[in-house]
Amino acid sequence: MIRAAIIGAAGYIGGELLRLLLGHPDVTVTAAVSASSTGRRVDGTHPNLRSLTDLTFCAMDRLGACDVLFHAGGHRAGMTVLPGLLDHGAVLVDLSGDFRLADPVVYERWYGVAHAAPRLLPTFVPGLPETQRKRLTQADRISVPGCMATAGILALQPLTAAGLVAGQVWVDARTGSSGSGGRPGEGNVHAERAGAMRVFAPAGHRHEAEIAEATGVEVGMSVTGVEAVRGVQVLCRVRLAEGVDERLVRDTYRLRYADEPFVRVVAQRRGLYRLPEPKILAGSNFCDVGFALGGRGREAVLVAALDNLVKGGAGNAVQCMNIRFGLPERRGLDFPGLHPN
Amino acid sequence: MIRAAIIGAAGYIGGELLRLLLGHPDVTVTAAVSASSTGRRVDGTHPNLRSLTDLTFCAMDRLGACDVLFHAGGHRAGMTVLPGLLDHGAVLVDLSGDFRLADPVVYERWYGVAHAAPRLLPTFVPGLPETQRKRLTQADRISVPGCMATAGILALQPLTAAGLVAGQVWVDARTGSSGSGGRPGEGNVHAERAGAMRVFAPAGHRHEAEIAEATGVEVGMSVTGVEAVRGVQVLCRVRLAEGVDERLVRDTYRLRYADEPFVRVVAQRRGLYRLPEPKILAGSNFCDVGFALGGRGREAVLVAALDNLVKGGAGNAVQCMNIRFGLPERRGLDFPGLHPN
Amino acid sequence: MIRAAIIGAAGYIGGELLRLLLGHPDVTVTAAVSASSTGRRVDGTHPNLRSLTDLTFCAMDRLGACDVLFHAGGHRAGMTVLPGLLDHGAVLVDLSGDFRLADPVVYERWYGVAHAAPRLLPTFVPGLPETQRKRLTQADRISVPGCMATAGILALQPLTAAGLVAGQVWVDARTGSSGSGGRPGEGNVHAERAGAMRVFAPAGHRHEAEIAEATGVEVGMSVTGVEAVRGVQVLCRVRLAEGVDERLVRDTYRLRYADEPFVRVVAQRRGLYRLPEPKILAGSNFCDVGFALGGRGREAVLVAALDNLVKGGAGNAVQCMNIRFGLPERRGLDFPGLHPN
Amino acid sequence: MIRAAIIGAAGYIGGELLRLLLGHPDVTVTAAVSASSTGRRVDGTHPNLRSLTDLTFCAMDRLGACDVLFHAGGHRAGMTVLPGLLDHGAVLVDLSGDFRLADPVVYERWYGVAHAAPRLLPTFVPGLPETQRKRLTQADRISVPGCMATAGILALQPLTAAGLVAGQVWVDARTGSSGSGGRPGEGNVHAERAGAMRVFAPAGHRHEAEIAEATGVEVGMSVTGVEAVRGVQVLCRVRLAEGVDERLVRDTYRLRYADEPFVRVVAQRRGLYRLPEPKILAGSNFCDVGFALGGRGREAVLVAALDNLVKGGAGNAVQCMNIRFGLPERRGLDFPGLHPN
Repeated sequence: MIRAAIIGAAGYIGGELLRLLLGHPDVTVTAAVSASSTGRRVDGTHPNLRSLTDLTFCAMDRLGACDVLFHAGGHRAGMTVLPGLLDHGAVLVDLSGDFRLADPVVYERWYGVAHAAPRLLPTFVPGLPETQRKRLTQADRISVPGCMATAGILALQPLTAAGLVAGQVWVDARTGSSGSGGRPGEGNVHAERAGAMRVFAPAGHRHEAEIAEATGVEVGMSVTGVEAVRGVQVLCRVRLAEGVDERLVRDTYRLRYADEPFVRVVAQRRGLYRLPEPKILAGSNFCDVGFALGGRGREAVLVAALDNLVKGGAGNAVQCMNIRFGLPERRGLDFPGLHPN
Repeated sequence: MIRAAIIGAAGYIGGELLRLLLGHPDVTVTAAVSASSTGRRVDGTHPNLRSLTDLTFCAMDRLGACDVLFHAGGHRAGMTVLPGLLDHGAVLVDLSGDFRLADPVVYERWYGVAHAAPRLLPTFVPGLPETQRKRLTQADRISVPGCMATAGILALQPLTAAGLVAGQVWVDARTGSSGSGGRPGEGNVHAERAGAMRVFAPAGHRHEAEIAEATGVEVGMSVTGVEAVRGVQVLCRVRLAEGVDERLVRDTYRLRYADEPFVRVVAQRRGLYRLPEPKILAGSNFCDVGFALGGRGREAVLVAALDNLVKGGAGNAVQCMNIRFGLPERRGLDFPGLHPN
Repeated sequence: MIRAAIIGAAGYIGGELLRLLLGHPDVTVTAAVSASSTGRRVDGTHPNLRSLTDLTFCAMDRLGACDVLFHAGGHRAGMTVLPGLLDHGAVLVDLSGDFRLADPVVYERWYGVAHAAPRLLPTFVPGLPETQRKRLTQADRISVPGCMATAGILALQPLTAAGLVAGQVWVDARTGSSGSGGRPGEGNVHAERAGAMRVFAPAGHRHEAEIAEATGVEVGMSVTGVEAVRGVQVLCRVRLAEGVDERLVRDTYRLRYADEPFVRVVAQRRGLYRLPEPKILAGSNFCDVGFALGGRGREAVLVAALDNLVKGGAGNAVQCMNIRFGLPERRGLDFPGLHPN
Repeated sequence: MIRAAIIGAAGYIGGELLRLLLGHPDVTVTAAVSASSTGRRVDGTHPNLRSLTDLTFCAMDRLGACDVLFHAGGHRAGMTVLPGLLDHGAVLVDLSGDFRLADPVVYERWYGVAHAAPRLLPTFVPGLPETQRKRLTQADRISVPGCMATAGILALQPLTAAGLVAGQVWVDARTGSSGSGGRPGEGNVHAERAGAMRVFAPAGHRHEAEIAEATGVEVGMSVTGVEAVRGVQVLCRVRLAEGVDERLVRDTYRLRYADEPFVRVVAQRRGLYRLPEPKILAGSNFCDVGFALGGRGREAVLVAALDNLVKGGAGNAVQCMNIRFGLPERRGLDFPGLHPN
């Protein structure tokens, strides 16, 4: 059994890690660390885990030995906490934003503070199996990308890598409310957030930098909060390179994702679910990717959808763990999502 | 492997049966019968099943041999279709309303038509493991209760069976929109149904008769459609028998459900999830049951919540199948639900 | 022009008072007092008022002269603030809970603190035009009932006053999220509250005491938060007195509310809106009241719906003001609500 | 009093016309024509109008004399019905799509049928007061733009008219469910539509052609249905012409809309409502317009929001009527929207 521990286990990503790891046949959860909830029952905070565990949250000094250590704390916590754990011996999987960008200058531009551990940046492997599988088999430090970045990269990368895209792209992202965590604040009061179309990042978002770095193209990004708890969807508007037609786009996606266990190409001519729709992905580790051509065939709209807490966070992290520990990639991640939902 | 077939596989309950059975390690799905969708891919109708199956819906005459046959068609279809399948050899699990009420006279009062196969009524065992487990081990004809009936019975039965309830009870039920199926109609147009508190059955609902039959008490029931896709919650107002106090109520529930794999007693003093909440149960087979005392201790409000398509339908049916075929009861039903959701 | 001022103008009820009073042809708003928002623009907090006003929130010492003074602060604030304003000269309209219950002992039982100004309690007239119209024409101190109390009283009072109800009643109330105000807190985080059926008051709620006091019957009440921002709906289960039939119930309601400008009797045989539905009442001052008979005619379910911030608060207060100042009762309150919504 | 009649009065736009016209002090509604609902009470279909009218729907042959005739039927109905009404004498205000595009060839490309009355096309004045006010004072045939087109034009036109935009634009539109009407269909089943992010028009939508025609720029458009009943929001990504900075953009909008009664410039540095948000506009005739610069100042994201049934339909039509009949433009359109909502 792989011994897994979680730092920041009382947050939404922490809760999803617990759900997935408690249900994973090859894993035992050894510690659920939470500074704010030390001593409380885990299922008090995550009521969906009732009857599944008797764990209580513990303080950092009770972390103990483990084989894999997930850090689900927020930005700035990552670069503060992880340097002290380098000698712990566990494989580190970070879900904060602190080790996603390779360049500390870019980090400072987007996060507004200087990076506290710039030397560690090159030691982290991006936790995106679809582009880093081989490196992940041996990675001891893994940094899981942002939820919207994962969607954007999986939508764009097959085309940019194949040279099918010309010029810059616009990524229009929509997100549910769980993406900003569960701490009460002005921005997530139900009466204000319910039914909203809140353009909270009209031009520029941290995940934009991740997409640009991963795809090598110039990206402009807008983010709108819409009514949903879980779910991220991105629309990427791209200009197609000379001579690229629908068939080539389709074949490129099909070929690229043929063997991926958690990416499905969804681009149908009709139907309510002809393009990726997050609402049927809640709880699942799928990222659906699709496209449609417009602008008389010179442009394409690429669409990707995922559950921000699963493929956009905890599920992706568990998939990386499976790879790193030589387990079947789907292990513990087989929930397919619900319809209707 | 148990060979399972589904009649009415294109509906919402049919889709959930497919999701659960395709993921069940001891089952193989041999036929997904749908008159309206014959020839179409199953994952066109149930898009959450993409990449999990290549099945297409077939016509009734392609049903073929199987060990267990689920009927997920609507009311009236059950008593029309099932009589012709008695010699098929499979264990029959009916999810229509047609074999839930023991008395054909009561059936006619609530369903508005005479029962077409009254002689078969006594041959069906109610598909509620919590009250019929022993009989289910050998049952060849099983009739799964209505979603709100299951919630109401699981909330009431421990107290009524122990003689803790005096007089009649009022059951106030709230339900999401999936309960009425996916066929377009005036009642489920999004703009009319969204955010509604629609008292569509103010005094009297078919499931009321099931609860009364199962608990032996007189029941008055109101049903309100509220904003949700999945989810049923019932509040049962009861007068407590002389001398019954909170401790006795709690102990009665605890004892009664101590060994039940899918019933949890949720009755806490504080917290957002102190009482059963359907929103964290979507996709799961749990029925959470709780209570609170009021009226200066002479009355109690009993609360139960479940996912109407799972514990209120398909999941319950699979649990019955597990019992009937000697499998561990939780097999294939381990998804715990999501938080937040 | 009537000069109106509002204390607690930055809250949700305060915002609705501003919307209604700024649009009222006979009123000028002289002060919007808010301790927390002093100096900020009113339309920064209430963005629907953009282009309609240049008001800024002011501190209490800038209250100034006015003819009517609305207090929209919370519980405990009412009995703290209002005693100091008795000599101000304005008609006082209190929307906190502090002057709703006549008996300070009952107040303490429900609010958990001793009443700070018990002598003032008898000087307040309940702000419910449907039962207090005559007294309101001369009232200088008015206490507007709670939102669910208003719904419950308007549903029950015609029958209880006519002696048509026997024994106690159960009031099952459902409410949107705006009822608990806009201050961020654990309970109103969007990801937790969205799509919920949260039984936060299973047996007993302050508004229960108001209904009991106003109708003279024993009341048991449960309150559930459901998905909605605005909107309250109550279902009242009553036993009918001997010999009472549907026709008598209907005639009693019709007669009782024939001349009421803001109460509509909605009890139809069919249709999606056959019984009162809050979702079409958002923004309006209507309270819709309806009923259905059950239990073989011995019981009735009475249903009422309203917008908790309007007829359940600010609108009701403005209606009281209209009565007190001799204006047509509908003045400034003519928005009928939206369909669909 | 202006005599107003409505054809297609049982639809959602028809209902909003009724709500606005019944509340308009200078208008009397003479006929509510509906083929499908002839003989039924208007408030049976539009329950928010209960107690406000005793009108029943009538057949076309009972249209009778009127001064202004609103056509709220769907596409194809406009060009079929209106030609027969040219001699009726009333000012015609069409809300179908049939007279929005000047060129019948473009019409056929987007609507898939040849235009039945191409000669009439040039006789209609676009019903957009912000760009056509002068012509509307004398127009006898008015064609109200599409809801998303109105939002897009009001966002783009100030900049395109001033030459501040270079190259093509991408319009990303999000819409609530009421935009597709109230007829039951696969696409608007609540369980499928609730919480969706349905990219139903990934590349190309009829309203795109209207925006292109009105602004003279090349437009690519995507439309996504999100969870809302009412509400449209558009994000327009534009490249700014050389030398254009934030101040110039802001000044251009401010100047352009300074005297517009129903357009507000909303572009703040912070706050939950810093950019246009449809949820606070339900029921109101406002179109809020805002912007943010990105791409290191070379690009801008223009945002507009409105209620698709009001400023995107019925309200806009009433505003046109006010202009045409010499009434104050705000008359009957003063509802400001709700917060929270």
